[in-house]
Amino acid sequence: MRSDEQAIREVHSTWIEAVNAGDLARLLAMTTDDVVFLIPGEQCSDRDAFSTKFSAAHQQLRIGCVSELIEAVIVGEVAYTRSRDSLTVSPRAGGEESRLAGDRMTIYRKQPDGRWLLARDANVLSPVQG
Amino acid sequence: MRSDEQAIREVHSTWIEAVNAGDLARLLAMTTDDVVFLIPGEQCSDRDAFSTKFSAAHQQLRIGCVSELIEAVIVGEVAYTRSRDSLTVSPRAGGEESRLAGDRMTIYRKQPDGRWLLARDANVLSPVQG
Repeated sequence: MRSDEQAIREVHSTWIEAVNAGDLARLLAMTTDDVVFLIPGEQCSDRDAFSTKFSAAHQQLRIGCVSELIEAVIVGEVAYTRSRDSLTVSPRAGGEESRLAGDRMTIYRKQPDGRWLLARDANVLSPVQG
Repeated sequence: MRSDEQAIREVHSTWIEAVNAGDLARLLAMTTDDVVFLIPGEQCSDRDAFSTKFSAAHQQLRIGCVSELIEAVIVGEVAYTRSRDSLTVSPRAGGEESRLAGDRMTIYRKQPDGRWLLARDANVLSPVQG
């Protein structure tokens, strides 16, 4: 049987794949209804606000994310992870590529059917020079 | 008997009091040994790095923090909160006051003796103009 930690690691990597693919439906299927995202310099986003921002970003930008899982702590029906993320963003219309990097902290909730859904996510990514 | 939510609310307000008082010993007594802090534009801080940064900041700056608790979710031995923080920072040597504001997400772990300790903390505070 798959362990909870293995399940969390799979959710983490599937999330990044879906971000890079611009697959909003897949991301939403992996989140709780009350999900909240914290992003530096922005108001926190609920499910609807996240959907709007994610769609707008992918229309305008090519996004490439790499995420290294630093820790996954599982305590009963809750798990929290920390990852080191790097984001490359380039305008689809052409123009300069920009890079962001930093840590991300995520909270997952185990569902009655055994799935782990993303419930809270805070990233402190900041621009990288050069 | 005090409920877990009440206990979390007390820890949250005691934390802010200790931040404003520059009381590092009190803050450290409220954290787990493996505590990690995520701050925009910085490397994440463990207990030692947090202590060094907090002491240095309080030597140079007058710090005033106000924090409104938005939610406190308790699931067994883990709790997570979200708060809206405002920080006023002014150099002790004189000079312009600056303000930061934004959301903070904190994870607490319940100890065998019933205390709730701060285990992970990510803030996405950013400078406020004006």
